[in-house]
Amino acid sequence: MTPDTDTAVTVHPAWLPDAATAPLRDLPSAVLGAGPCLETVRSELGRAVPVPEAALVVADVGAVATPSDVGLATLPDVPAGGHAIVRAPGRTVVLGADGPAALRGLYALARSVALARLGAPAPAAVTVSAPEQPLRMLDHWDNVAVHPVMGQVERGYAGGSIFYADGEVRADLGRVRAYARLLAATGVEAVGINNVNVHAREARLLTDGLGDVARIADVFRAYGIRCFLSVSFASPRLLGGLDTADPLDAGVVAWWASAADRVYAAVPDFGGFLVKADSEGQPGPFAYGRSHADGANMLADALRPHGGTVLWRAFVYDHRQDWRDRRTDRARAAYDHFAPLDGTFADNVVLQVKHGPMDFQVREPVSPVLAAMPRTRLALELQVTQEYTGQQRHVCYLAPAWGAVLGFRLDGSRTVGSLVAAGGGVTAVSNVGDDPFWTGHPLAQANLYAFGRLAWDSTLRPEDILDEWIALTFAAASPVALTRIRAVLHAMMDDSWLRYEGYTAPLGVGFMVTPGTHGGPSVDGYEYSPWGTYHFADRDGIGVDRSTATGTGYAGQYPSPWRETYESVETCPDELLLFFHHVPYSHVLASGKTVIQHVYDSRADAVESLDGVEAAWESLVDLVGSAVPAAFDARVRERLAVQRESAVEWRDQVRSYFWRKSGVPDASGRGIY
Amino acid sequence: MTPDTDTAVTVHPAWLPDAATAPLRDLPSAVLGAGPCLETVRSELGRAVPVPEAALVVADVGAVATPSDVGLATLPDVPAGGHAIVRAPGRTVVLGADGPAALRGLYALARSVALARLGAPAPAAVTVSAPEQPLRMLDHWDNVAVHPVMGQVERGYAGGSIFYADGEVRADLGRVRAYARLLAATGVEAVGINNVNVHAREARLLTDGLGDVARIADVFRAYGIRCFLSVSFASPRLLGGLDTADPLDAGVVAWWASAADRVYAAVPDFGGFLVKADSEGQPGPFAYGRSHADGANMLADALRPHGGTVLWRAFVYDHRQDWRDRRTDRARAAYDHFAPLDGTFADNVVLQVKHGPMDFQVREPVSPVLAAMPRTRLALELQVTQEYTGQQRHVCYLAPAWGAVLGFRLDGSRTVGSLVAAGGGVTAVSNVGDDPFWTGHPLAQANLYAFGRLAWDSTLRPEDILDEWIALTFAAASPVALTRIRAVLHAMMDDSWLRYEGYTAPLGVGFMVTPGTHGGPSVDGYEYSPWGTYHFADRDGIGVDRSTATGTGYAGQYPSPWRETYESVETCPDELLLFFHHVPYSHVLASGKTVIQHVYDSRADAVESLDGVEAAWESLVDLVGSAVPAAFDARVRERLAVQRESAVEWRDQVRSYFWRKSGVPDASGRGIY
Repeated sequence: MTPDTDTAVTVHPAWLPDAATAPLRDLPSAVLGAGPCLETVRSELGRAVPVPEAALVVADVGAVATPSDVGLATLPDVPAGGHAIVRAPGRTVVLGADGPAALRGLYALARSVALARLGAPAPAAVTVSAPEQPLRMLDHWDNVAVHPVMGQVERGYAGGSIFYADGEVRADLGRVRAYARLLAATGVEAVGINNVNVHAREARLLTDGLGDVARIADVFRAYGIRCFLSVSFASPRLLGGLDTADPLDAGVVAWWASAADRVYAAVPDFGGFLVKADSEGQPGPFAYGRSHADGANMLADALRPHGGTVLWRAFVYDHRQDWRDRRTDRARAAYDHFAPLDGTFADNVVLQVKHGPMDFQVREPVSPVLAAMPRTRLALELQVTQEYTGQQRHVCYLAPAWGAVLGFRLDGSRTVGSLVAAGGGVTAVSNVGDDPFWTGHPLAQANLYAFGRLAWDSTLRPEDILDEWIALTFAAASPVALTRIRAVLHAMMDDSWLRYEGYTAPLGVGFMVTPGTHGGPSVDGYEYSPWGTYHFADRDGIGVDRSTATGTGYAGQYPSPWRETYESVETCPDELLLFFHHVPYSHVLASGKTVIQHVYDSRADAVESLDGVEAAWESLVDLVGSAVPAAFDARVRERLAVQRESAVEWRDQVRSYFWRKSGVPDASGRGIY
Repeated sequence: MTPDTDTAVTVHPAWLPDAATAPLRDLPSAVLGAGPCLETVRSELGRAVPVPEAALVVADVGAVATPSDVGLATLPDVPAGGHAIVRAPGRTVVLGADGPAALRGLYALARSVALARLGAPAPAAVTVSAPEQPLRMLDHWDNVAVHPVMGQVERGYAGGSIFYADGEVRADLGRVRAYARLLAATGVEAVGINNVNVHAREARLLTDGLGDVARIADVFRAYGIRCFLSVSFASPRLLGGLDTADPLDAGVVAWWASAADRVYAAVPDFGGFLVKADSEGQPGPFAYGRSHADGANMLADALRPHGGTVLWRAFVYDHRQDWRDRRTDRARAAYDHFAPLDGTFADNVVLQVKHGPMDFQVREPVSPVLAAMPRTRLALELQVTQEYTGQQRHVCYLAPAWGAVLGFRLDGSRTVGSLVAAGGGVTAVSNVGDDPFWTGHPLAQANLYAFGRLAWDSTLRPEDILDEWIALTFAAASPVALTRIRAVLHAMMDDSWLRYEGYTAPLGVGFMVTPGTHGGPSVDGYEYSPWGTYHFADRDGIGVDRSTATGTGYAGQYPSPWRETYESVETCPDELLLFFHHVPYSHVLASGKTVIQHVYDSRADAVESLDGVEAAWESLVDLVGSAVPAAFDARVRERLAVQRESAVEWRDQVRSYFWRKSGVPDASGRGIY
């Protein structure tokens, strides 16, 4: 672990320990090109030599006139945003399409070296890699001023903000620099630096906070990462002294144009604005009788002269719903609000759509909005921070979940990954804080890593990404130790998402969490609430009828074949059965079990499987202090104990709730209360 | 309304408007005696004249040598702590047993005058009144520093603290003075000025805060009210730098003795310490393997030289209970902890016992501890602040509930009022804050008033106390208006406790409230929690078996006849049925209804009865601006609207929950979801 420049506490180096970069840093190397990212390359490497003597050459192809400039006979094609790695005899050449790409290429080479120690096959002589998603972004729900209810990082489970402390932007941005470096190594190219719920203090980042925003942007620029700001749609009123924020008001238009001018004067490569409008109490265009296209396009006009982008969230629904009303369906909301607007958004607006129709549940169907707006640039929004997936107290490796979303053929042929790659990309809520392990649970680092890698290439297999993360993170381990660590972490993590699903809300029905915190079980916690989040369990059955024939009609928002697949109880996949249908407890699943027995068994089985998780980690005890840092081990053990306690609580509450309600005995005879 | 000296906002005068005291203030009067309370009497009156010329004479009997001193032929006997009022021709004489009693006698006379305007029969020529309870105290759960979760006033629903602001004792104690005056008029004679959950800032009131405590005590002294401090049992560690708080440690004993010396040097008439020990996370003697008698007696020794008293709370239970474990019963805890200690407490310890075995629910059986400790001084603890009874958003006049407790013949012969009067008294958690109406809901003022009056005389009828409160509060109204207001308020308030019970948790089962806030419904909110608060509803039935034969044995903690009465489903009163028994939904109540139909009907009936409540208040519209202040009316209307919305939510959630669980249709056919 390396010293934290902010606090002098020791910060874990995550997937870029010295050992991961040392094999490159020790080589005689040459770097071609200029700009902040190539300066970063130079600082990552040592022993600068002329190209003919270099074992490693890193270059921005724009600085390469002829192949001989980099000591090659021919130059490979370097795709936009991507890089090529040429492994010639005695020399490796990394060519980036631009400065950021060259830097990412260097980290890709480090990854390749690390993987070799895991026994990966030798790479081809020339490997070329290009990003699948144009936008690969992490959002930070960080507040400058600690929010009285939500804390400093909304839905954060890893301490305070790395950006802000004591109500101000940190003076020392050392942690931000280390973070930017980690992100660059995953391929992430943009960050949103403040909470989408924009409170009073944070709104001012757009005006009198621009100097601080520029300082943050300077740090990220050196790693090829652009900064976005979350802005309040009410800014003209809150900050500008206008009496309206109506997007069609000339004064408002002028205010935003001027605000954008000022931002770009401070941050020339500023990414743009991220906006949560008319959602969960945030202001928006509805207050003025305007559409979301009116609102987004007005901001887009302000940003266009500077090349900026509006990221407009589609997370718009009625959060004051009447639980008695079963015709209103929150799942329908994004589609109902936005699909009719397809084709009306400006070309520098990207509509940011949560992966499911609800809110980052452990299991949801893919949002039908992603197939409903072919004339709109779309971004898929994922959640790395584990709001509903164990809050970084539970091991829950999310790459399998994200991979399933990105690979889902939503219109029957094209994957979600390809749909959003067409004009948008992938964003996610980050899981980092000022915790010494960045993410609370050390193993949750793998989620942050995997997000970047899947945004780069959605076809990567989750288990292969995990191998990369292991190879880099434990680069200092001996080959024997590394092999053991790899086996243990796969045993702990590969199925951890399914395990978490196993002991929490069953069969896609979602929620059942403690109101407010969203941590821990409360089966009825959101059942009689205004949030649109219901399971409708009664003594006979459970689930939400979202069919077109008899329910809310949500299934009809999908293109074929999914509308038909989800419409019918017979063809709906078991894991989403209760999301789409209300069925009796006696309904028999594809597994041959009844719904109620599945509820009983899966909760208990999942908790029993934690024995293996704990035993796996325990088997590494002799490596603690060498290949596994003692503090890392201590944190993992602490979290495993908390996970078990929480999982037992989930199991017992869910099982007992349904036993009390259904009266059906558990055939397995396991403890129920 | 009179100006608030603190904030210049208008503060409602509650039950001491000018009109209530003007009939006395306008008389030529003489005051005999010395001391702060007689100075207060003098300031309440005007036109000082010699006794022979006085229409009103107020005297401390200690200052009266012969009857002629006060212009009478004979002096009535004046009981300890009490007063006599002699209505001679052309002259009224108020005689107090001491200064505070003389002041209370003056307010009693004002009450008598006000009641006459309601048509009360003329009082006898000589009326003598003595307090039933020696201790008549209000506890304030006020924090000096705002607590991040609990706020400034824990379980407060009337704004901030009247004692503290901005992390300090208020410089201007004008509101405290006005409050002390109101309390004196009810008979209250002691206050605890800080939260029983003693946090770090509040602990220091005992040491470097003594100057401020003395300022507060000075204010109360002028109204015959003593001050108590809540102290942390860990004070020797927290404040004294000792490494233990063991009550048998000589250093600890010496520290407390010295602390008590310092307190009495600052406040010679200091009441003593109020202690919540080993309860809900507060420190206590258990940490050192000592008993609660050890802990309380050690503090008692420190206070004894100064005449101080320890109020030791019996609210000790396991708040980390396993909800799976049905053998552990929180209701048993106070008895199990304290009954074996009877006879071991020092003579200046008063054990403070909540009225029920749980926690101030809208309906609980009377705590059996109150009959189980004949050799211990006991105080009954009530809750004026409406934590579980509508949080001062619902009209809920609590005098009927308290009267029922005080009049309950717990050992078959003696009432609770007489049991505690033997050596202790009655305490309650206050409901005031810096709200302009003192109590949030203006009608909740009646609860504060009624508490003091019942502590004085537990045989007073709730409806008569309400008449007193109306007569004083609306003393400025014309006789015709007053008659109408009286009828309206009785219609709104007499049955309001039963109405509130009607739409909330049924048949004594309790809780079903939103975790944390305790406001609003959440039927399962505390069902799978560690707090020991369960209803055990399943598809077949509901309730907690606390019988001796088959349950937790709690019923066996009662003396006869209650142990037998509660033990049997047949004899247990319906309103406590689910507290003592788990019964099927089909169980038939004394009313002839099944339990489930009672749940359905009572919730709906109670909400329907709000029509009458609202109509009653509406009928006073023509008095608004004259007999009823406009701001008073506006606040009542605002609260009535909130009450209806909340009551509807209670009704619908409870009815729907049990319908979904039981599957039994509601025979009344009213809306269920």
